[in-house]
Amino acid sequence: MQLIDQSFVIEQEVDGEKILQAIERAGRTCYKSEDKISSDSAKKFVKMIVASGHHSVLEHEKITVRVIIDRGVSHEAVRHRICSFSQESTRYCNYSKNKFGGGVTCININKYLPDNEAIEAVYDTLLHCEKTYLMLTTEKNVSPQIARAVLPTCLKTEIVITANLREWRTIFTQRTAEAAHPQMRELMRPMLKRFRELIPVVFDDVGCVED
Amino acid sequence: MQLIDQSFVIEQEVDGEKILQAIERAGRTCYKSEDKISSDSAKKFVKMIVASGHHSVLEHEKITVRVIIDRGVSHEAVRHRICSFSQESTRYCNYSKNKFGGGVTCININKYLPDNEAIEAVYDTLLHCEKTYLMLTTEKNVSPQIARAVLPTCLKTEIVITANLREWRTIFTQRTAEAAHPQMRELMRPMLKRFRELIPVVFDDVGCVED
Amino acid sequence: MQLIDQSFVIEQEVDGEKILQAIERAGRTCYKSEDKISSDSAKKFVKMIVASGHHSVLEHEKITVRVIIDRGVSHEAVRHRICSFSQESTRYCNYSKNKFGGGVTCININKYLPDNEAIEAVYDTLLHCEKTYLMLTTEKNVSPQIARAVLPTCLKTEIVITANLREWRTIFTQRTAEAAHPQMRELMRPMLKRFRELIPVVFDDVGCVED
Amino acid sequence: MQLIDQSFVIEQEVDGEKILQAIERAGRTCYKSEDKISSDSAKKFVKMIVASGHHSVLEHEKITVRVIIDRGVSHEAVRHRICSFSQESTRYCNYSKNKFGGGVTCININKYLPDNEAIEAVYDTLLHCEKTYLMLTTEKNVSPQIARAVLPTCLKTEIVITANLREWRTIFTQRTAEAAHPQMRELMRPMLKRFRELIPVVFDDVGCVED
Repeated sequence: MQLIDQSFVIEQEVDGEKILQAIERAGRTCYKSEDKISSDSAKKFVKMIVASGHHSVLEHEKITVRVIIDRGVSHEAVRHRICSFSQESTRYCNYSKNKFGGGVTCININKYLPDNEAIEAVYDTLLHCEKTYLMLTTEKNVSPQIARAVLPTCLKTEIVITANLREWRTIFTQRTAEAAHPQMRELMRPMLKRFRELIPVVFDDVGCVED
Repeated sequence: MQLIDQSFVIEQEVDGEKILQAIERAGRTCYKSEDKISSDSAKKFVKMIVASGHHSVLEHEKITVRVIIDRGVSHEAVRHRICSFSQESTRYCNYSKNKFGGGVTCININKYLPDNEAIEAVYDTLLHCEKTYLMLTTEKNVSPQIARAVLPTCLKTEIVITANLREWRTIFTQRTAEAAHPQMRELMRPMLKRFRELIPVVFDDVGCVED
Repeated sequence: MQLIDQSFVIEQEVDGEKILQAIERAGRTCYKSEDKISSDSAKKFVKMIVASGHHSVLEHEKITVRVIIDRGVSHEAVRHRICSFSQESTRYCNYSKNKFGGGVTCININKYLPDNEAIEAVYDTLLHCEKTYLMLTTEKNVSPQIARAVLPTCLKTEIVITANLREWRTIFTQRTAEAAHPQMRELMRPMLKRFRELIPVVFDDVGCVED
Repeated sequence: MQLIDQSFVIEQEVDGEKILQAIERAGRTCYKSEDKISSDSAKKFVKMIVASGHHSVLEHEKITVRVIIDRGVSHEAVRHRICSFSQESTRYCNYSKNKFGGGVTCININKYLPDNEAIEAVYDTLLHCEKTYLMLTTEKNVSPQIARAVLPTCLKTEIVITANLREWRTIFTQRTAEAAHPQMRELMRPMLKRFRELIPVVFDDVGCVED
């Protein structure tokens, strides 16, 4: 049983300038104001679009992120509808196989636990879950999709998330807020920070990056 | 720790005749053929709509179902986008409270396990998960949203699902197929059977109701 | 050529009390607080849901409306994604047929025109469009789907719109605002007024009902 | 009054190889089979994904197309829900302005008309529509959003469409079929042909490219 931290990585090259230009070209179609495109007009145009609320224009560009979280957090994440997801499957992955190190990986939640007694109790429980899962899949010939019953909610999962820029704005608004799950916040705030570095004009006005 | 079976209940009165009439009224708008509505035209009209593939017309009526499954199956279920879900929250429900019987409820998967040894190993593991969860939430003052980390995938969850008839057709096609998870199939096949009794003309041609 | 006014009619019986109760039952699933349901708890619960922003719960109930507008306005209306539409088809309706009175119907926009000269110029143009359409479809055997090329943007269209209550809130917010098209506003403000009468607790806080 | 033909242009650089690799990386997350990625594995993997029906994986990549069609066809196009659109607005564009050549542009449908008499009757009607529109907007100070009432269905519109690859498959299946509107077919069949050149493995099995 391995404990790892949450993490994310952006799965595509993001050229902020090129993205703003593509949004400008799409957006100016509505007004047929393509004549106003110049070498430095994109940023100003998109700023206006964001401020005015004409956000459908932001949908023409997407960003794909690979995320490592637990299945509790992922169950919430996949509720976003205007997203696309490819997620590590507990039906098709067999964690007893060598490529998984012959065992189960969980997300480390120690920082949220009050003392060593709690940390050890959690760890023992996760070990027990793993042991039973491995016994079922290796000795009893139970399929992973059934054996998963004993895997814990903090099971590590990997999920590739694609969303357009408008939807990312919605996601960051909801998932960086105080009301969000602590692990969700802990994941999404640094992600928003990174998005702001890449395309500040689209993400500077949404969400929260600080604890 | 309690083990219960999966189940579903339809959460609204379903008047099949009235639903077909509403679909007919909506569908005939496209052709402005409302003059052809008679006391027994609805069934025939909807049959034609289903056969012709003009399925958007089926979207005007919805059915709401309350389902009891485990969180492994629910994680798949909520991927349907043209659905609405209200799900028992592991953030807001505290299973140490009296109203939950002071403990955790799981979905019984014994029928998928090969022998008593496997059944007992699973049961012991679930007991261990429950014990740790209760300790964390009652003795250590850990919030349910953190303590859920040790809850198993077969944790019972209750979820209210609303979908329009077209989306239900898609759901039944996918979720009653051989390729579906056994528990999903076991839930959805009797549900489809019930839907066919209620509105046969809309559901007779999709999915599978038999093992 | 006939000129008619925009209008709408709600296509289903709306029992506000029953709708609130269904939303309460669905919403309390999240917290497993069904024990708090009483004969008069629904309204208070839904009010809390609306105020708290937990709006997904409002998606379990839908309202279907039949609307008569022009094809300019309908082109905007169908951009709402979480809606279902069945619309009078310019491909399948042949306006030269008797059931259409042997002619074309348009939405009356006279009130938006400054003087009689403008009104007459518009009317003459619409007559010309109709005349050409009828000639093409009756004398030249041109199909309606081609002949529609000459039909004007103010062509009357009938459209059945189904949306859940959350989506209706979004629609009313956008389509009753000052920034909306005047004909859209003129349609949606009385519709919102009617929705407020039917289910005040869900619609009292969104949009605008006055000029 | 100007008549032009329908057309489309792909609005982004499409690197088929790179797109297949991105889809492979996302798709292999489900099975955690990233170890099987090699320099030539992407095409084979995506072929398998397409054949198996695991099409959600195709959603991680998108293509943006700029299309010139008439407003009859665009009214159908915008009904696709998993798409993003930015469309030339009849509310915000004033066709009396110099940048529109001081007049209205329509899509040429002559090829669908049976004889010169029909062609001339259509042309005269469109001229009349334009004349009234220009009179209203220049002499009577009527806003474009009201004056559009007299603009014909064959009015040229420009629309930027972004969809993921799975949705493009659905679009091509429906819009290149015999049942589609002739102008829609005429637009979409060459577009599908182009998509097949760019990413054959994703588009070779859907739709129809020939008359």
